[in-house]
Amino acid sequence: MLYIVGLGLGDERDITVRGLDTVRSCSKIYMEAYTSLLSLGLDPAALANLEKLYGKEITVADREMVEDRVDQVLSKAADTDVAFLVVGDPFGATTHTDLVVRAKKMGVEVKVIHNASVMNAIGVCGLQLYRYGETISIPFFTDEWRPDSFYEKIQNNRKLGLHTLCLLDIRVKEPTWESLARFKDHFLPAYGRDTLCIGVARLGSDDQKIVAGPMEKLLDVDFGPPLHCLIIVGETHPLEEEMLEFYMIK
Amino acid sequence: MLYIVGLGLGDERDITVRGLDTVRSCSKIYMEAYTSLLSLGLDPAALANLEKLYGKEITVADREMVEDRVDQVLSKAADTDVAFLVVGDPFGATTHTDLVVRAKKMGVEVKVIHNASVMNAIGVCGLQLYRYGETISIPFFTDEWRPDSFYEKIQNNRKLGLHTLCLLDIRVKEPTWESLARFKDHFLPAYGRDTLCIGVARLGSDDQKIVAGPMEKLLDVDFGPPLHCLIIVGETHPLEEEMLEFYMIK
Repeated sequence: MLYIVGLGLGDERDITVRGLDTVRSCSKIYMEAYTSLLSLGLDPAALANLEKLYGKEITVADREMVEDRVDQVLSKAADTDVAFLVVGDPFGATTHTDLVVRAKKMGVEVKVIHNASVMNAIGVCGLQLYRYGETISIPFFTDEWRPDSFYEKIQNNRKLGLHTLCLLDIRVKEPTWESLARFKDHFLPAYGRDTLCIGVARLGSDDQKIVAGPMEKLLDVDFGPPLHCLIIVGETHPLEEEMLEFYMIK
Repeated sequence: MLYIVGLGLGDERDITVRGLDTVRSCSKIYMEAYTSLLSLGLDPAALANLEKLYGKEITVADREMVEDRVDQVLSKAADTDVAFLVVGDPFGATTHTDLVVRAKKMGVEVKVIHNASVMNAIGVCGLQLYRYGETISIPFFTDEWRPDSFYEKIQNNRKLGLHTLCLLDIRVKEPTWESLARFKDHFLPAYGRDTLCIGVARLGSDDQKIVAGPMEKLLDVDFGPPLHCLIIVGETHPLEEEMLEFYMIK
């Protein structure tokens, strides 16, 4: 059996009781390093804390292993109980859907143990989850490569009055106002300097930071280390507004 | 301090280790009955299992208590540590945003302990979470009251090729094909009998049921007891299609 176990968003204590019992009962434990690197990840202290709680050794599976040598993991899971640990919820990343597909094709049984991920924990900001449109990822900007494929999606959400969750690539060089503004040349404006946004850092951790305010003003806020995401706020209900007040930049 | 603790989707073992430690350290524990009723809820056996794991007594807070007599809960939380348990993640329902707002206004500190909810666990179907549009709720249909406010939202999602998560009210009398089809009179068609859908029951429980197929064919599937939700599938990527194959009705 292959157990894909979500670890949640904070530290080792955010695993569920079901997840912990499962991990302790497995004979081999892998931890996915690629997306994990993005949060608690490969910090040796964090890994040691996990191993201590589980009473088990963890094999860190780098991206190459997950994507190319996954058959090793799966053939082990055909004979014995294997846990594959994933930060957040198992289906936050495409990689893990692929893992399930490959397991099922090999006839390996899969059980998923869910946990919190950015996709639901972002509700802590006070905006209702069902009022979000399509989620977008903003990749790393370089001088040569400034992708804009996400822009149309924001625009579609804005037209419908929906909130937009923007996941920021960890290596992102924060786009400057100028780089965002240049879209004005070939797109109709979907947001402006004054558009209400919420910046979120380290969601679900003890030191998470949430600040709401006009987009331009958030540029001056030091959010500290990643993970970061940004919400472009759509039409709001009074209860959402009350909640946002607590996070509003002064 | 008021701790709002998500219990996740299955049974008592889906609380996180952090959540369990917190509940055990609190002097008073409330459990929100209104949304909880929708899943593990007020089944006395389920409640007894929670109390056994926590080693604490739980006060079930009905909707009236949560919405009208919440000041009692909050004034207790001003003096001592109080846990408020919520099935899924704390911000799945508007009620809990309101609780946080009221707590903050009274100067009561709030800490949230996240967990899985339908909004992210639905990823288990294989459709990528960032490809969902606005989530809709389909309320209880009666002979006199057949709301259609959700229809336009489905249509907007469909136009953009996005998936639509439809949360079905627990008291829902399943809409018949005829009642859904009648929208043809005054709306442009957004879906038809053949539109690919996924029916999901008891997501995150051991006996969850996931069946994909044309909308019309799903009407003949016995999904068993609630909670139920339906996904109207938008444009799909090859990996999503591979995953859906495993759930496809034969």
